[in-house]
Amino acid sequence: MSRYQQEDLPAQEVARLTARATRLADAVRAVVQTTVVSEVGDAEVDEAIAHLEAANALLGRETLPGSFGVRFNTDGTRRAWGNAVTGTRNPIAPPVVLEHDGERTWGEVTLGPGYEGPPGLVHGGILAAILDQILGAAAENAGAPGMTGTLTVRYRRGTPLGPIRAEAWLDRREGVKTFTKGQLSTADGVTAEAEGVFILPRWAREAAAEFLRPGVGDA
Amino acid sequence: MSRYQQEDLPAQEVARLTARATRLADAVRAVVQTTVVSEVGDAEVDEAIAHLEAANALLGRETLPGSFGVRFNTDGTRRAWGNAVTGTRNPIAPPVVLEHDGERTWGEVTLGPGYEGPPGLVHGGILAAILDQILGAAAENAGAPGMTGTLTVRYRRGTPLGPIRAEAWLDRREGVKTFTKGQLSTADGVTAEAEGVFILPRWAREAAAEFLRPGVGDA
Repeated sequence: MSRYQQEDLPAQEVARLTARATRLADAVRAVVQTTVVSEVGDAEVDEAIAHLEAANALLGRETLPGSFGVRFNTDGTRRAWGNAVTGTRNPIAPPVVLEHDGERTWGEVTLGPGYEGPPGLVHGGILAAILDQILGAAAENAGAPGMTGTLTVRYRRGTPLGPIRAEAWLDRREGVKTFTKGQLSTADGVTAEAEGVFILPRWAREAAAEFLRPGVGDA
Repeated sequence: MSRYQQEDLPAQEVARLTARATRLADAVRAVVQTTVVSEVGDAEVDEAIAHLEAANALLGRETLPGSFGVRFNTDGTRRAWGNAVTGTRNPIAPPVVLEHDGERTWGEVTLGPGYEGPPGLVHGGILAAILDQILGAAAENAGAPGMTGTLTVRYRRGTPLGPIRAEAWLDRREGVKTFTKGQLSTADGVTAEAEGVFILPRWAREAAAEFLRPGVGDA
């Protein structure tokens, strides 16, 4: 199982691999979204499946054991490309790209038909996943990276599929616990609010101690 | 945008479409998971992308406008195939298949590398999404379908990628609010606990009134 790994990759090679991973994952993302709304008949479905099986065989010729994990680059940045919300190479991730603007962490993303819950609306669980990720990133941005202890999401109204904005910020710290708050909004205003409590468990502290440089790299 | 729709499909046709949707979505799911862990080089990636683009073009020849929505069949069962957690035809959904055992709602699913958060562990947001879905299904199973008002998840420890079991049940009802509780577990015990508050907003009651038959069909 891949865990935390140091890789001696210069920035130029990381940039090249990032471009390739994005190109591949975007191609899969397009198929994922089209699959949900496709209305074609048996012949096209069979032909599409043949192409998908061919792609899977090619990509499967050499694979990592287990999962992607987190790789640390030579310059201290890191790649969490398997992350289900932000992972560059994970087609399940929209992906959400998070940025830090001083004490505020934010990201904008457009969610297609593959993220549906109630008809025409984003699945409440997908909204919770985005909030979990950004609340954790805000904790890390405040110098206190950790795993989620408690996540509370209050849904104010339905969030239509389409563009959304996520924001999060540090609320307070109490001992080993870091409390962050955040929200999701559309052009019509806030649709969900959340609070997260983050803690870095001992095993994670030990596993990451060798590499972790808070505030650097993606979440 | 697709919303709630009645379709006059006999059970046999629903079964045929379900089998086809499953076959297609499973082929895409395989590519999604392989993409996350693939270690092949430029030549294989380029060839795989060509296959993916061909599949996307085939599937995209005829598509629904907007999203899948919810379709009601002749016998009162329904298809929410675009659902990001349970959707038969949504490759983002593992999918989680929920069953009702009296007052208890449960489901078992195996989560691959595409659902990663911390290295080797399921993303806390994906766990929240599964809990949101099953807590809502438990509310519906209790005769009170609704949208999530509040979701609270307490993470007891990391949940390794692999097989997990989700369970949920009715806690109590207070006026228009339905409170359900649930948990996720692995062979080693409970990893997360959750509580959900569900409310059916007026617009959803009106939109669904024509079709909704509580307790029937998938969530």
